[in-house]
Amino acid sequence: MKSEFAFINQIRAQAARRSADLVCGIGDDTAITSEQMGRETLITADLLIEDVHFRLDYTSLHCLGHKALAVSLSDIAAMGGQPRFALLTLGIPKNNLSAAIRNPQWDEFFAGYFALAEKFGVTLIGGDTSASPQSLVIDSIVMGSCESGKAVRRHGARVGDAIYVTGNLGASAAGLELLRRGECLNDNIHDLVQTALRTHLQPQPRIEFGQLVGAAGLAHAMMDVSDGLAQDLSHICEESGVGAIIDDETMPVAPETKLVAENDEAAFRLAVSGGEDYELLLTASREYEPALLEIARTCHLRLSRIGEVVAPDPSGTSPLWLRRGHRIEALDTSGYDHFA
Amino acid sequence: MKSEFAFINQIRAQAARRSADLVCGIGDDTAITSEQMGRETLITADLLIEDVHFRLDYTSLHCLGHKALAVSLSDIAAMGGQPRFALLTLGIPKNNLSAAIRNPQWDEFFAGYFALAEKFGVTLIGGDTSASPQSLVIDSIVMGSCESGKAVRRHGARVGDAIYVTGNLGASAAGLELLRRGECLNDNIHDLVQTALRTHLQPQPRIEFGQLVGAAGLAHAMMDVSDGLAQDLSHICEESGVGAIIDDETMPVAPETKLVAENDEAAFRLAVSGGEDYELLLTASREYEPALLEIARTCHLRLSRIGEVVAPDPSGTSPLWLRRGHRIEALDTSGYDHFA
Repeated sequence: MKSEFAFINQIRAQAARRSADLVCGIGDDTAITSEQMGRETLITADLLIEDVHFRLDYTSLHCLGHKALAVSLSDIAAMGGQPRFALLTLGIPKNNLSAAIRNPQWDEFFAGYFALAEKFGVTLIGGDTSASPQSLVIDSIVMGSCESGKAVRRHGARVGDAIYVTGNLGASAAGLELLRRGECLNDNIHDLVQTALRTHLQPQPRIEFGQLVGAAGLAHAMMDVSDGLAQDLSHICEESGVGAIIDDETMPVAPETKLVAENDEAAFRLAVSGGEDYELLLTASREYEPALLEIARTCHLRLSRIGEVVAPDPSGTSPLWLRRGHRIEALDTSGYDHFA
Repeated sequence: MKSEFAFINQIRAQAARRSADLVCGIGDDTAITSEQMGRETLITADLLIEDVHFRLDYTSLHCLGHKALAVSLSDIAAMGGQPRFALLTLGIPKNNLSAAIRNPQWDEFFAGYFALAEKFGVTLIGGDTSASPQSLVIDSIVMGSCESGKAVRRHGARVGDAIYVTGNLGASAAGLELLRRGECLNDNIHDLVQTALRTHLQPQPRIEFGQLVGAAGLAHAMMDVSDGLAQDLSHICEESGVGAIIDDETMPVAPETKLVAENDEAAFRLAVSGGEDYELLLTASREYEPALLEIARTCHLRLSRIGEVVAPDPSGTSPLWLRRGHRIEALDTSGYDHFA
């Protein structure tokens, strides 16, 4: 038995989850899933590369397995979809390869991955494995499904919509800064440092909230906050041909930001531009606010109205504006740029 | 405009191909495709990493763009499916990043990719882009479709089936060896060195043959030859619980193997274990041979009967046997092992 196939067979044994729509999982040229009339397939891929998206001295492989799946599940949540199947592509550094089989660390990676997959009823059905010269490379692919026409896209925001965001913002960016300062994850669930680290290392995709909002048709536009609220909201504005005005007083700045931010202004900037929050950002008619708040309550999530969709700026100066008391200023929409 | 998004928008503009089943392509949290009653989705992912799967001093980016898509299309062909949609994930080395936009080389990558996509009616609908610390990383994901129950899997081979393979074997392995020796691709289409290089750098997925065989239900098992005929056939044997016997005289050894092999035996070994042929390997009842040959003729492909499916070896010594005149010997099924 080739060691590569032994590794794949180990994964295949853990992946063997039953699903009515799964015809063929790992072990053939392709995976096969059934299609259904009146349904749409949602598909997303997220690349995670060592020393770009994560550092192995900051994260355990258990957290990494969780996060690799979580970031893709978050995209399915942002469409209001139900996640169903996943493919996982792994490029494993050569110096790690001989140890990849029966290495407890790799068991930990899959423990983290499959625990989250199990939670949301996701079956791993395919992928690829390879050696990698230096960096650990992960491509996480998730397929979801929704009723035809029910997916909540980015292009539907309307002038007059209220803008909402789930949870708090900035805790993940604070967590990353704390990791840089040498903090480590432990089991203390109440410590603010630990919640910041956990938000960064083990983000929770807002699947249930996204699905309930999508199924009820309550949102005009929705996306997940991965590159920072300001940048992500600018994508909704661009795709919808609108502008947006954000109110600084209603922004749900995570208390964890205070651990690393010098003052309130720095904390606010972290919340608006930090990224990797994996919360859901949506626009909806004000009349649906009670229904949205009810869904948020069901999901044990905070939901904040943070601003309003406005007509696009005719001068093209900025799609986003920030209201601070009686002053209005353009909001910087830059976030992390891989190609900068 | 962030440079990463400018790069994505360039790709998006080229990817904008119309398809009745495509609801949403590049530009949202996920792509969206329609499902149809009585159809099945086929999905495959192939990871290509610089200096593992390809070397940039051996291949042009045009060939690389072609090959990245071709290897995944080949998996769809092996199921008898129709390719429909693709996702492409790119990790681009940092020293290459600032040049990624409007770099003619990257235009060449996409020219190679989209020319093949166009040929087979495939629309690029998503993916991801990122910086990579050192190596160029490509994850090629292709979704296909077939009538429910019509996908040709690996587990259906039956004792008594004849074993067939399309085209010739070993030319790709010979091409790789020639590249190592310093040969370069040029426009001379009749030169044997050039056909070897082209087979390695620009493999042609056997989509039409696979689809016709699948739709007609002629094969019991099928897969593409990527890791070498012997190893790939051993996968069919393992999944089907059978053995196989191969006849050395009927093996379609590519004439290109003679360019690098010292003798006939070495050429035969290259054909059987070389890999990356991307031909189709199938088992079928002998009665369907005329129909299979007719399909091969339609597709302008050679089709060779190379052996027979037999009962599994009770001693478990080997799933594969080789007949050489009156002698039978166990056939080594090892091929390339990324984890060796």
